[in-house]
Amino acid sequence: MAKLTHFDEAGQARMVDVSDKAETARTAVAEGHVTMSADTLALVTRGTAEKGDVLGIARIAGITGAKRTSDLIPLCHPLPVTKVAVDLVPDPGMPGVRITATVRTSGRTGVEMEALTAVSAAALTIYDMLKAAQKDMEIGGIRLLSKEGGKSGPWSRT
Amino acid sequence: MAKLTHFDEAGQARMVDVSDKAETARTAVAEGHVTMSADTLALVTRGTAEKGDVLGIARIAGITGAKRTSDLIPLCHPLPVTKVAVDLVPDPGMPGVRITATVRTSGRTGVEMEALTAVSAAALTIYDMLKAAQKDMEIGGIRLLSKEGGKSGPWSRT
Amino acid sequence: MAKLTHFDEAGQARMVDVSDKAETARTAVAEGHVTMSADTLALVTRGTAEKGDVLGIARIAGITGAKRTSDLIPLCHPLPVTKVAVDLVPDPGMPGVRITATVRTSGRTGVEMEALTAVSAAALTIYDMLKAAQKDMEIGGIRLLSKEGGKSGPWSRT
Amino acid sequence: MAKLTHFDEAGQARMVDVSDKAETARTAVAEGHVTMSADTLALVTRGTAEKGDVLGIARIAGITGAKRTSDLIPLCHPLPVTKVAVDLVPDPGMPGVRITATVRTSGRTGVEMEALTAVSAAALTIYDMLKAAQKDMEIGGIRLLSKEGGKSGPWSRT
Amino acid sequence: MAKLTHFDEAGQARMVDVSDKAETARTAVAEGHVTMSADTLALVTRGTAEKGDVLGIARIAGITGAKRTSDLIPLCHPLPVTKVAVDLVPDPGMPGVRITATVRTSGRTGVEMEALTAVSAAALTIYDMLKAAQKDMEIGGIRLLSKEGGKSGPWSRT
Amino acid sequence: MAKLTHFDEAGQARMVDVSDKAETARTAVAEGHVTMSADTLALVTRGTAEKGDVLGIARIAGITGAKRTSDLIPLCHPLPVTKVAVDLVPDPGMPGVRITATVRTSGRTGVEMEALTAVSAAALTIYDMLKAAQKDMEIGGIRLLSKEGGKSGPWSRT
Repeated sequence: MAKLTHFDEAGQARMVDVSDKAETARTAVAEGHVTMSADTLALVTRGTAEKGDVLGIARIAGITGAKRTSDLIPLCHPLPVTKVAVDLVPDPGMPGVRITATVRTSGRTGVEMEALTAVSAAALTIYDMLKAAQKDMEIGGIRLLSKEGGKSGPWSRT
Repeated sequence: MAKLTHFDEAGQARMVDVSDKAETARTAVAEGHVTMSADTLALVTRGTAEKGDVLGIARIAGITGAKRTSDLIPLCHPLPVTKVAVDLVPDPGMPGVRITATVRTSGRTGVEMEALTAVSAAALTIYDMLKAAQKDMEIGGIRLLSKEGGKSGPWSRT
Repeated sequence: MAKLTHFDEAGQARMVDVSDKAETARTAVAEGHVTMSADTLALVTRGTAEKGDVLGIARIAGITGAKRTSDLIPLCHPLPVTKVAVDLVPDPGMPGVRITATVRTSGRTGVEMEALTAVSAAALTIYDMLKAAQKDMEIGGIRLLSKEGGKSGPWSRT
Repeated sequence: MAKLTHFDEAGQARMVDVSDKAETARTAVAEGHVTMSADTLALVTRGTAEKGDVLGIARIAGITGAKRTSDLIPLCHPLPVTKVAVDLVPDPGMPGVRITATVRTSGRTGVEMEALTAVSAAALTIYDMLKAAQKDMEIGGIRLLSKEGGKSGPWSRT
Repeated sequence: MAKLTHFDEAGQARMVDVSDKAETARTAVAEGHVTMSADTLALVTRGTAEKGDVLGIARIAGITGAKRTSDLIPLCHPLPVTKVAVDLVPDPGMPGVRITATVRTSGRTGVEMEALTAVSAAALTIYDMLKAAQKDMEIGGIRLLSKEGGKSGPWSRT
Repeated sequence: MAKLTHFDEAGQARMVDVSDKAETARTAVAEGHVTMSADTLALVTRGTAEKGDVLGIARIAGITGAKRTSDLIPLCHPLPVTKVAVDLVPDPGMPGVRITATVRTSGRTGVEMEALTAVSAAALTIYDMLKAAQKDMEIGGIRLLSKEGGKSGPWSRT
């Protein structure tokens, strides 16, 4: 059975030692969404076109959230990200907003957690800005799409 | 159509003025989950019973995450929470871990965002600790279950 | 000669004791500006109308900056702000961007520093977003316009 | 017309990708000032010589502020600064205090924002410590003096 | 045997619910020290009198550290402190520096942790500033001296 | 007499310039303890075996505390740690809990302060969780055990 690297032989938590890993280029892409009623989504799309830029603010929250990853997740290594991009696309078929975050760094550990945290922060911010209109929105589908770099090589969700 | 309180008449973002609202007791409960394979869930449940306490660490991350809410969400009011509890229950039928967070304060705004952020931080931490074993876990079902307090009165998901 | 409240009789710094002050409604308004060339300002105004929303992002930075005030300024009391609004107006005559921040709380100390910090964070963010186009922009005119609340009563710049 | 690097082709904000830039030595120097009455400045200079060290505390605030730069400015890359020095000089002719900050790092992006943030944090702290004596002080003249390192080469204000 | 309030009946950690406690005036005083050689202490006392103000900087670190308490200690309630004072006294007999911190708030929980954290942050900062001169200094004697306020009433170390 | 590197020739504080130091592997080990009554220690050891995991939570606080070091200590360089491990051992002979922290990085400055901060944060968290049972616990013996890396070479407490 797989071993969890965040615990030592005695089962005690630790920040995994990555000191001897090579610094390589790392990329991770993650996605997620916020589902809402068509009426609520109309507030978003109307706002983007016209005024009240929900998606613009959520994008900033995603980017700044990525920078807070190691503050939020106890055993996560701090690392200086070199790129964060957050895409937010209204999806009338859902209805809701689809979120994709891409994070890069040159470092000793991957940036999966940074990409997932960017998606989460953007989703929470969308919820916050729309909660006066609808309380039963739902955040979901938060998952890693792909990662590159490091000894384990590239990985893509199939 | 509903108006978004986070924007003024000109569509510019602001932190909503709650200065004149009464300080009342506020409670919010939110939930979410992380789905994973049965093998990965076995690592969690084995660890809790024996060693490598994934859920204990995720619980702490949820509690500390609730304290960071206004740092993560741009237009969220800062407020001193007076209670945070995070429940984490392995669900073999899913398979995965179910997360519930309860937050209280005495303040001028609700604590929905604090409860949702606690769930998100706990979920991200679970992902972080298990990602060496499985990369395609998924975080979902993050939503408000109920809130109490304030002028708008109690609300429950139906 | 006036005494500095941030020092005790021996000249040692302290966070002033406000425990026995009444909790009253407090408001502060501050302003500032970023001067730049007409060409750089055109990038801002074009962007606001069309794409690349410099002012929208600076507004968010001002609001989140207000929440960080007691983190940045050593002897500043932490206090939960109840309103933050940041106005950003392109001024072709300057040329540059004028910034005004309004902050409210119900507390034992004033929110002048929160308003001044909001202006500063918005100004720095404008600089950051435009520095690829112009390096010799200048941030200035950061000052308190008015304050209300507390024992000392209302004050306005004359 | 110049392009703003913080926005993509569609005008959406992003943290610029610097992953492929070389790590080089970077230096930036910025300045600013706080103007005040001669009486208020006397409180500062008297304090420095004797007791109540306003400038010593503002210097610390400038140094710690530089470390918070990427927390305050949404699209700013986090980077580990390797030197921060903040000089504070009373100027009776102004009257006021002149602030100069020098920041260095070895990294993929420049440290202009760190130097400007150090100046801003020091200026705000001076205001905070003296505001009991004078409310209409003004912070101004915050600008970049020089930068070195990176592909664009050295730059100096002329 | 005493029960630990930070755990529920199932032994799971939580932030204790203080929502229904009254807001009362709370004070806590804590102390600690850093022991060092007489030569190292001479660097401190010489600096205070003349240049290189180790104690002034440690005092600021203690005050700002008190404001970070709930960031550092997972189950600690966030609360806005209304006074922080940190006294630092060189003790040639030790030799070393004695640290005392006094913290006040009006709140639902005590400020013992804030006072102890202020002492710890000041002590660590003293160590940091002197470590070039002596590596085997020791931080110790960190303990609560007294507390007041709240249902449990005043307590003093005997 | 030794010079303090954190001050320039004029005695003004600065963050020491380490830009030209080589990036080398750095390790530091620090220790400390919390003394308490045998009854209080029994609450810890019973909890670890059974429920209410005081040591598990203190371990997380130590690890996250190490990541906050440059936030807490004014002149400390920020650096991305690559390993943090915190060991907590109940010592019935003391009685109390012994804490050891090991921190690694690859960087231009040592990680002594990170190791000492990890110990301090773990100790404060132990105090926080047990203070309902005993108020006169004491934190002490916080000191560096060894360091490796950098120009000054290895050092061990003798």
